[in-house]
Amino acid sequence: MVVARLSDLPEVDSDCPELRKQSEAMLVQEMLFASHLGLSTAIVRLHGMRHVNLARITYSIVGHHSHCPLFQLWFQVPMVNPEVNAASFREGEEQPDLEDPWEWWNKFRLLCNSDKKVGVALELSADLPDEPVISRWLGEPLKSLVLHTSLFLTNRKGYPVLSQAHQSIIKRFAHLNLQVIITGANRHSSIKNYMQYIDHVYQNSVKSEQRVPYSSGYEDHLQIPLQPLMDNLESTTYEVFEKDPVKYSEYLNAIYQALIDKVPEEEAETNVQVIMVVGAGRGPLVTASLKAAESANRKVRIYAVEKNPNAIVTLLSLKEEVWKDSVTVVSCDMRDWPAPEQCDILVSELLGSFGDNELSPECLDGPEKFLKPDGISIPCSYTSYIRPLQSSRLHNGVGEGTLDKPFHKKFQTPYVVHQLNTYNITPPKPLFTFHHPNRETPVDHTRYGHLNFHITQNSVCHGFAGYFDAVLYKDVKLSILPDTYSKGMFSWFPIYFPIKEPIRLKKGDEMEVHFWRLANKKKVWYEWCVSSPVQVPVHNLNGKSSSIGLY
Amino acid sequence: MVVARLSDLPEVDSDCPELRKQSEAMLVQEMLFASHLGLSTAIVRLHGMRHVNLARITYSIVGHHSHCPLFQLWFQVPMVNPEVNAASFREGEEQPDLEDPWEWWNKFRLLCNSDKKVGVALELSADLPDEPVISRWLGEPLKSLVLHTSLFLTNRKGYPVLSQAHQSIIKRFAHLNLQVIITGANRHSSIKNYMQYIDHVYQNSVKSEQRVPYSSGYEDHLQIPLQPLMDNLESTTYEVFEKDPVKYSEYLNAIYQALIDKVPEEEAETNVQVIMVVGAGRGPLVTASLKAAESANRKVRIYAVEKNPNAIVTLLSLKEEVWKDSVTVVSCDMRDWPAPEQCDILVSELLGSFGDNELSPECLDGPEKFLKPDGISIPCSYTSYIRPLQSSRLHNGVGEGTLDKPFHKKFQTPYVVHQLNTYNITPPKPLFTFHHPNRETPVDHTRYGHLNFHITQNSVCHGFAGYFDAVLYKDVKLSILPDTYSKGMFSWFPIYFPIKEPIRLKKGDEMEVHFWRLANKKKVWYEWCVSSPVQVPVHNLNGKSSSIGLY
Repeated sequence: MVVARLSDLPEVDSDCPELRKQSEAMLVQEMLFASHLGLSTAIVRLHGMRHVNLARITYSIVGHHSHCPLFQLWFQVPMVNPEVNAASFREGEEQPDLEDPWEWWNKFRLLCNSDKKVGVALELSADLPDEPVISRWLGEPLKSLVLHTSLFLTNRKGYPVLSQAHQSIIKRFAHLNLQVIITGANRHSSIKNYMQYIDHVYQNSVKSEQRVPYSSGYEDHLQIPLQPLMDNLESTTYEVFEKDPVKYSEYLNAIYQALIDKVPEEEAETNVQVIMVVGAGRGPLVTASLKAAESANRKVRIYAVEKNPNAIVTLLSLKEEVWKDSVTVVSCDMRDWPAPEQCDILVSELLGSFGDNELSPECLDGPEKFLKPDGISIPCSYTSYIRPLQSSRLHNGVGEGTLDKPFHKKFQTPYVVHQLNTYNITPPKPLFTFHHPNRETPVDHTRYGHLNFHITQNSVCHGFAGYFDAVLYKDVKLSILPDTYSKGMFSWFPIYFPIKEPIRLKKGDEMEVHFWRLANKKKVWYEWCVSSPVQVPVHNLNGKSSSIGLY
Repeated sequence: MVVARLSDLPEVDSDCPELRKQSEAMLVQEMLFASHLGLSTAIVRLHGMRHVNLARITYSIVGHHSHCPLFQLWFQVPMVNPEVNAASFREGEEQPDLEDPWEWWNKFRLLCNSDKKVGVALELSADLPDEPVISRWLGEPLKSLVLHTSLFLTNRKGYPVLSQAHQSIIKRFAHLNLQVIITGANRHSSIKNYMQYIDHVYQNSVKSEQRVPYSSGYEDHLQIPLQPLMDNLESTTYEVFEKDPVKYSEYLNAIYQALIDKVPEEEAETNVQVIMVVGAGRGPLVTASLKAAESANRKVRIYAVEKNPNAIVTLLSLKEEVWKDSVTVVSCDMRDWPAPEQCDILVSELLGSFGDNELSPECLDGPEKFLKPDGISIPCSYTSYIRPLQSSRLHNGVGEGTLDKPFHKKFQTPYVVHQLNTYNITPPKPLFTFHHPNRETPVDHTRYGHLNFHITQNSVCHGFAGYFDAVLYKDVKLSILPDTYSKGMFSWFPIYFPIKEPIRLKKGDEMEVHFWRLANKKKVWYEWCVSSPVQVPVHNLNGKSSSIGLY
C-alpha cells in the first residue's frame, strides 16, 4: 500500500494571515495531488497542541471533499515527546512538564469529531514510555507503526534486529494488522533486511498469541445480544456453543460434586436424585448430568425442560436412542411448567455476557418453586462486572452499525463484542449479584448500583466493558473476566455499553458510574449514566432504546 | 395554575435497597396521583448533590411515562446554600467550602439530558448571593420564584413589602413570566396582601423595562438569518425595517458629515457629489442622502441601485413623484453593474446581525471599483463580536426547531434571536473586521480568528452570542453590542451559534474558541469549534449544514 507523505506545514496555524493562507493552499494542493495519483491515504506529522487550523483543513478534505471521496489521513505521532531527550541534557534544571504526544493526537481527533477516516501512525521511540502510556494506544485507531532505522541493532550475522522491548511492542500491536513503515537511512546491507526481520517478528507473534477459537472474524464486531426468550435459537447456534470445551466439563464437575455431597456413599444405590435441567436446548447439560452421575456412581432421574419446539425434536430422539428411561423430556416454558414432583438439583445455563442479561433470574423464578428446601441450584450465583474503556473503534462502530434503530438509540444499546482495539482504563469492579435458589418474597430482580473508578492517566472513555463470573457449585466457577478467565472457554464475549459522547478523563479523576437493572411486565432493561467527573444523561431511559423481552 | 408539591424523599438515593425501593414507590405513586388529579406540574425539592436515582425516576416519568404524558417537573432550589447561615455561627472555625445550589440543579439537569420538561423553582433567600450567581440563573429554565413570608417586611400601613434588593431581583426576572409562590405562615392580615404586593412590583417592572419595539413575541424565538442575495425581500419586511428610528438618522448624519468634509463651503454651488446607494431597497437611504444634502447645503446626484425588481417599482414611483431628476434608478445586481461614472460616496446597508453575514464584503467588491480614489464608503468598517452564553432555552429550541434539516445540522446553523432567557458568561470580544473601500489585491474575504475567554464562575456553555458594530463615518456608529447599543434601534437582534453538546465550564478555565469565515464560488459560511478547556468538533464543516448563498 502506497501512502503519500505530506509536507510539514506548521505555518497553517500561523497568526500571520498571509503565511497561513499560503500554507493552507499548499496543503490542500498536496492532498488533491495525492488523490489525483490514485492514493487513498496520506500521512502528516503532528508537532504539538497548536494545530486547530490543520485539524479543520484535513477534516474538511477527508471524506468530505467532493474531489477526494476516499481519502484517509494518518497522523504521525511519536510515542515520546522528542523534547524529553533534549531536556535530559540540561542537568540541574527542573524537568519541564512536557506534553504527552497522545494529547496532541487526542485534541486533534476530538476536533475532527473522531472521524473514522482519521487514524494514527505511531512512531516508536528509542526510549519507550511507561506501560500505561503504551497500552492507551491500544484504544486508538492505529493504522501504522513507524520505525526509524536507527532503532535497529545489528546481530552477529550483520542483520538488523530490534531490542526485546521493541519486539514486544510490535507483538502487542500485531493483532491490529498495522502497516509497518521503515524510515531513515539504510544502515545495513539492504532495506529488505528490515522488512524480513519485521515479518519474522510478526509471524512469531501470531504463533504465540492466545487465540480464542471461533473468534476469528469477530474482532471488534458489534453483535446484538441473543434474546433466547423471544427468539428460538437456531440449530447452528446450539451447534457452535455445544463445542465449548470448558463450559460443559465445569458443569459436569459441579453436578458431580453436588451429587457426592447430597448422597452419602451408603445410599448410592437407594437414593435417586431428581435433577431438572431447565433450558435443556439440544441436551448437553443432560448428557453432562448423566456422565456426572455415572462418575459419582449415584442414581438420578432427569427432567429435560425446553421451550423451543425445534430443540425438543433433538431431545426426544436423544431420549429414544441414548438416554432411555432415565430422562423425561418436557416441552414447556420453564416458567409455566407445573412440575409433577420436587427436585434435588436444578441445573440451568441461562447466562449472558453480563450474567443476568439473558434473564436467568426471571426464568428460574418458576422452576425454583419445585426445588426441595435443601436443594441445590447450579449455578448458585453470578455477578456482573463493569469498567470504563477507551476504544474509538467500538464507538465509531456503534454509530455506523446497520442496526435498524435511530442514531441516538444505537448509543443506548449494549453490544456483545470481542474487544481487541481497546484500552481498559481501570480494572473491573463487581456490579450486580444474583443468588439461587432465591427464597425472598416478594421476589425483586431489579437492581441499582453505583461504582467509583480511580483514573490513573489522561484518557477518553467511550463506554463500559461488561463481564460476568458465576459460581456453579462451591469452587467450580466460570469466568469471562480477563484476570480469572476460564481458559479455553469461548461461549461468551464481553458486553459493551456505549455512551453517546466520549468523556475526557484526567489523571486523578474519580469516575462515578450508575447502572440500573429495571423491569416491567413485558421486558427487562439496563439504564446507565455517569455522575462524575462530568454528568452523562441517563442512557436507555425506560428501556426505550434497548430491552430484553420476557415473551 | 395549581402545582402539586411532592414529598421530600431523599431516601430514594439511600444505599439501603429496602428503604430506597419503598421511597421510589411512594414518589412514583405521588406523581401518578398528581397526574390523576389533572395537574400538569409537580414541584420537588433538591437538597444536595446526591440525587442520581431521584434524577432517573423523575426523568423517566416526565413526558416519558405513558400515564403522565404532559407532566412537567419543577425542582425547587435555594439561591444560597441553607448551611451558609448555620456555618456563620461557628466563629473561629474555617468556613466550609459549601456547594453552590446551582451545582445541585446543574448536575440534576445534565443527568436529565436538559429535558425541557424539567424546570427550576428558585427559592429567594434572605441573604442574597453575589451578582454573577444571580445572573447565572437568567440562563436557566426558570419557571417559578418561591418567596417565604419571612422575607417580607411590614410597611407603615401594616402591609407586607420586600427590601429593595429583593424587589430588584423580582424585577430582573419579571420578563421571564415566572409564577410566584408564596410559602410559609401568614404574618400579615391576609395572604392576599402578599399577592397584591407582588402584582404591584411586577407592574412597575414592566413599566420601567427598556422595551425594544417590534420585539414582542420574538423573545427567545430562533429565526433563520435573512438571505437577501438569494431571496428577494418582501414589501412587509422593508416596511418593518424602514420604521427603525435610529438607523436612518445615523446614516443621514454620516452622509451629512461626509458631504461637509468633501466639499468646502465655497464649492457648495459648483461641486456636485455623486452618491451611489447600492442595495437601495424601497429608498430610505436615498431619502436620507437627499435630506443630508439639503441640510448640508450641498449638491448631489444619486444612483439608486437595487436588484429586487419588486422594490424597483417603488423606487421608480418615488423618483417620478418625489425625487425627480436628482436620482437615477438602476435595476441591477450591484456586483454586475457597469456604472457610467465614478462616485464620491458609496452608501450601503448590507449588514446582518453578525456584521458581514449578509455578505456586505462580497457585494461591495463590485461597486467599490467605481469609487473615486478619495471616495468614501459608508459604512467604512464593521466588526463582529462573540461571547460564550448559557441558555438551556435556546439550546433546547434548536433541537425542537421546525427547521427542515436533520437534527445534527440544526446545531450547526446560526440563528437570529432576541435573547432573554440567557446568561452571558463573559463580555464579548471582537472577531472579524472589514474595511471599506477595500483596495487589496487579490481580494480575500475569508477569515480565521481565535479568541480566549476567561471564565469567572462555574457555568454551562450552550454556544455563542454574536453581535456587530459598524463605523458609518468618523464618529457616527451603529452598534448592537449590549454596552454600546444604539438606543432605540431595532433592526438587528443578536445571532446565536449553537454547539451540539453543552460544555461544562469551571471558574478559572480559559476557553479558546475558533471561528472561520469561508467561501467558495457559490456560498459563504462560518465554521466554529472550541479547543480548550475541552475539544468540540469543528461545526458546520464545509458549510454542509448552513451557508449564505451568493446567488
